[in-house]
Amino acid sequence: MGCKKKCRKTEEKQMKLQAALDTLTLEECLELLEETKGSIDIVEVGTPFVIEEGMVPVKAFKDKFPNIEVLADVKIMDAGGYEADKCFEAGADICTVLGVSHDETIQGVVRSAKKYGKKVMVDMIAVPDLKKRTEEIDQMGVDYICVHTAFDVQKLGQDPLNDLKTVNSVIKNAKSAVAGGVKLETVDAIVNEGAEIIVVGGAICNAKDRQAYAKEIKSHLK
Amino acid sequence: MGCKKKCRKTEEKQMKLQAALDTLTLEECLELLEETKGSIDIVEVGTPFVIEEGMVPVKAFKDKFPNIEVLADVKIMDAGGYEADKCFEAGADICTVLGVSHDETIQGVVRSAKKYGKKVMVDMIAVPDLKKRTEEIDQMGVDYICVHTAFDVQKLGQDPLNDLKTVNSVIKNAKSAVAGGVKLETVDAIVNEGAEIIVVGGAICNAKDRQAYAKEIKSHLK
Repeated sequence: MGCKKKCRKTEEKQMKLQAALDTLTLEECLELLEETKGSIDIVEVGTPFVIEEGMVPVKAFKDKFPNIEVLADVKIMDAGGYEADKCFEAGADICTVLGVSHDETIQGVVRSAKKYGKKVMVDMIAVPDLKKRTEEIDQMGVDYICVHTAFDVQKLGQDPLNDLKTVNSVIKNAKSAVAGGVKLETVDAIVNEGAEIIVVGGAICNAKDRQAYAKEIKSHLK
Repeated sequence: MGCKKKCRKTEEKQMKLQAALDTLTLEECLELLEETKGSIDIVEVGTPFVIEEGMVPVKAFKDKFPNIEVLADVKIMDAGGYEADKCFEAGADICTVLGVSHDETIQGVVRSAKKYGKKVMVDMIAVPDLKKRTEEIDQMGVDYICVHTAFDVQKLGQDPLNDLKTVNSVIKNAKSAVAGGVKLETVDAIVNEGAEIIVVGGAICNAKDRQAYAKEIKSHLK
């Protein structure tokens, strides 16, 4: 057991840092990824970025940074298989589907991911009964279940830690992820609760020194 | 009163035909819009099309066909104001937000639409309690509440007519719209129930003669 502990120390960190890019231009994003090399494991093409540019950023990130995973935050709600195919064909490693969508939609995204050898994250934003829906979705073969405090309700003082505890208490197959206003001040509580992927958006993008900020956040992960 | 009836006959039709374009290339869409001039009132840039191309089709449709309204089917789930701004800045006349999203998100989209003098359609896909949620959303200043049988559950035999009846029985402010597998065989029942906008996608796109099909569907509207 001592060995196990020791070996663990020399292993790579288990937790991954996902940087959500929403508000920057493609050029600025590429600069950010260059600056923060070694800190960011997954780059998220945020929903507003998809609305503006489609799959252009997915292709550009994959082309310039083949070692960073690319997540297309398309928040699929219908036509699961068809829409996921578009993301994976463009080079995305992970695509998102909404937890509030029909089971058939999530299942379609899972089939697409298996076909392409890629991954599915379910975004649990605005799911009314989180525990029950997590139990259902955990049986569907998805890779990640992501608790997500909506941007539009963060100002009401909500944060994702309690939701993360709920999801972690339920999942048997999927891994957990967490998003929604995560920053240096709140990351340790999340790290202590445990999650496979920690998503940080505005806190990195709006930092004065993005390189230092991403590095520091990454240093808090286990 | 006789005059009112007579005058009505010479007025333009009240119901609008919205063509949802999902599976065609931009070039093919522009050809379709040219062919079907006079039949299609609103052209919908479908969600998969947004995923692939972002706002490029919105700009192209508005540029080439300024008299046809353009709907960006972005199915907003968060960051309502920010994402709606992107659609309206690109030239969309209408953008969609999900009925399952937080109230704050829908309210953000409504504020954006008012700022730009544009319109909001709420997509009620996968809303668990349709009557209750329609009552809530009808108070939020949205323009259209759209019942929508998901593509992924149409094969289970579901269709939107009963949902349309529910919405029509509740709304006092918004107008109703209907989407999800509508075709010539089902359009009359919907027309008789009544809706401001009738969305037809695959039935037009996959028709052998798209021009004739769109014209015939349009002739069934009142």
